Amino acid sequence: MDQYSKSNDDALRARAMRVIPGGMWGHQNAPRLPVGYPQYFSRAEGCHIWDADGRKYIDFICGWGPTILGYGDADVEAAAANQRALGDAMNGPSARLVELAELMVETVPHADWAMFSKNGTDATTACVTIARAGTGRRKVLVARGAYHGAIPWCSPSVVGVTEEDRAHLVYFDYNDVASLEAAAEHCKGDLAAILVSAFKHDLGKPHELPTREFAQRARALADAADAALIVDDVRAGFRLDLGGSWELVGVRPDLAAWSKAIANGHALASVTGNDRFREAATRIFTTGSFWTAAVSMAAAIATIEKLRAVDAVAHMRAMGQRFRDGLDAQARSHGVPLRQSGPVQMPVLLFENDLDRRLGDAFCLEALARGVYLHPSHTLFLSVAHRETDIDRALETTDEALAAVARL
Amino acid sequence: MDQYSKSNDDALRARAMRVIPGGMWGHQNAPRLPVGYPQYFSRAEGCHIWDADGRKYIDFICGWGPTILGYGDADVEAAAANQRALGDAMNGPSARLVELAELMVETVPHADWAMFSKNGTDATTACVTIARAGTGRRKVLVARGAYHGAIPWCSPSVVGVTEEDRAHLVYFDYNDVASLEAAAEHCKGDLAAILVSAFKHDLGKPHELPTREFAQRARALADAADAALIVDDVRAGFRLDLGGSWELVGVRPDLAAWSKAIANGHALASVTGNDRFREAATRIFTTGSFWTAAVSMAAAIATIEKLRAVDAVAHMRAMGQRFRDGLDAQARSHGVPLRQSGPVQMPVLLFENDLDRRLGDAFCLEALARGVYLHPSHTLFLSVAHRETDIDRALETTDEALAAVARL
Repeated sequence: MDQYSKSNDDALRARAMRVIPGGMWGHQNAPRLPVGYPQYFSRAEGCHIWDADGRKYIDFICGWGPTILGYGDADVEAAAANQRALGDAMNGPSARLVELAELMVETVPHADWAMFSKNGTDATTACVTIARAGTGRRKVLVARGAYHGAIPWCSPSVVGVTEEDRAHLVYFDYNDVASLEAAAEHCKGDLAAILVSAFKHDLGKPHELPTREFAQRARALADAADAALIVDDVRAGFRLDLGGSWELVGVRPDLAAWSKAIANGHALASVTGNDRFREAATRIFTTGSFWTAAVSMAAAIATIEKLRAVDAVAHMRAMGQRFRDGLDAQARSHGVPLRQSGPVQMPVLLFENDLDRRLGDAFCLEALARGVYLHPSHTLFLSVAHRETDIDRALETTDEALAAVARL
Repeated sequence: MDQYSKSNDDALRARAMRVIPGGMWGHQNAPRLPVGYPQYFSRAEGCHIWDADGRKYIDFICGWGPTILGYGDADVEAAAANQRALGDAMNGPSARLVELAELMVETVPHADWAMFSKNGTDATTACVTIARAGTGRRKVLVARGAYHGAIPWCSPSVVGVTEEDRAHLVYFDYNDVASLEAAAEHCKGDLAAILVSAFKHDLGKPHELPTREFAQRARALADAADAALIVDDVRAGFRLDLGGSWELVGVRPDLAAWSKAIANGHALASVTGNDRFREAATRIFTTGSFWTAAVSMAAAIATIEKLRAVDAVAHMRAMGQRFRDGLDAQARSHGVPLRQSGPVQMPVLLFENDLDRRLGDAFCLEALARGVYLHPSHTLFLSVAHRETDIDRALETTDEALAAVARL
């Protein structure tokens, strides 16, 4: 399997072009990346990934987030295998559901309860539905440019979307208290929820942690309107704080959406909520064929337990800081305008005055050619499997890549 | 693991009540079933399932559809394990994506292409979005009472749903040509799609295969309006015909939604479509964190290949017929008004004049107590793992259960 001659990626793309619209869909569509990025992957282990032509990379995308302990983490896979021998998708949940819900409630301070699904979009959609059910109101405040999923009510594209799909969304700017207040005022009497990303991680934009003032104002506005404060922790969940990303700013949401990293790559999502919205969560109808599948829950339990045991956040923060510091020093030494932003364990690497992404693309391609997988506009992800030696190896590569950028 | 003393199910429900809203959500919520049904399961193998208290059942729900070859099918699990050793959710798809898309196109006559996701709802939603993108129109005809998923635009509940979420749905009655024509006429100039279940399998209602006249009229109306005909094959897919359920009536959709059985219990869904909608499918944005995960695709490939190799549809039809014939004879002999409907491999077992479900519930509970897991109002599912001896064992049980019903 996956033993190809040179240019397997091209061959697979050509075959895909016949049987998949445009060859690929969504965020993993390689044509959205600079020419030279592989579309297909053949293997992944720890913090390494191999493309379909056998080239090995130190990976800073981690499957776009899910891989938090490292690909194929032995403890997670052992727990998954134990459960798989018993059963996975059955006529109802296994005991793993209860154990996992208890673990989420124990781990996440705002959570009095948890529910589970498969996609981040399932979780954000359920949060909004619960908020509307609980408040009897309709309007949802969302930050301009924020990503909350890929179905018509929230998709970044409006192709195939009707006006009515977003009839009750009202926009504000992340970290802009005045715009948030204006949006809340606009919805007076009909505000169901304020939906806000864990931090501002819009594609191609500098990333920003929420300010305390913004987070506290969001909480206060939701309280004043008796509406729900929803944190979309799908991308960031468990990388900034095991208790939920807004623990960093001392603000607790009523509802939070989780997915990506919670089962170290096994398909799972979750909604956590407080008692204020328990009754509403009981009344909505949300379900899916595989939502109680036990293997992904066993994987999530093992993931969360290991994240705690190894102090994963501290490790990822240390590795992220090492990477950031190294990159900053290299950028200075090469006189290249690299601007890192976002939390160190989930950075975005952008270049100043690089609207056409000439520098960013070149940098990423130079790194890629030398065995480091970065992304020119998306949030990157560190994992527990990234050790000092990996960061240092990656930095040797980025030094050469930045030198190449300096020569442009 | 899962070694409990008596009444583990009660203990788990009590724990769940604290950390899961209402104790459970959605279609697997045991309180929707007669009192006496277990909520939790500890093991599954072949056509058997064990509840959390260790009671073993011959299973006629098959995880609510996904289990088509039998729980833990050795060939599927071997393929999944081989892929798992390489990688699952990576930075992009593996070659399994291309192989699976090719296999879907080869297996499903209407399909010129395929895309993949995780939930049936993902697939029905993408079908509607593609139809709207391709036609530039908005209205979607759906059958009254049909289930197409569990997010606001299609959920069977309106709790937390706004009027706008369904602004462009227009209703007709399944197999009622006049109502379909009237709905299409009502949407003149704005018709994007006719969305129709593979067969009428509404909860608690007699099931009906589509009539040829109805199916052909749906095709003709879609063609006349230049709209998409979408078959929702999420529940029925691969159980009636490997080429898609409407092959039975000689009508091919433009788009079809699949999930449940396509990977024998691994979380996967698919949209298949023809070239008319390829360009529209290229333009929409649809994605999810785990949608290219390779293990479920390896499982799907192995599932489809085995379904073909063993002539799965013929086997399930034969076993279904044996079960139906046996039940009919028993019902006659006990003078009990059992009315079976739907395809034999996906029947629903209802009783005449049983609106309060007194007979249906009693029958299912009597069967359950004797080790056969049925459902009083939902479609049942046969699998390849159901052999003659299993059907005959089940029939011994239903004979006693129907005798008990006759004594009511």
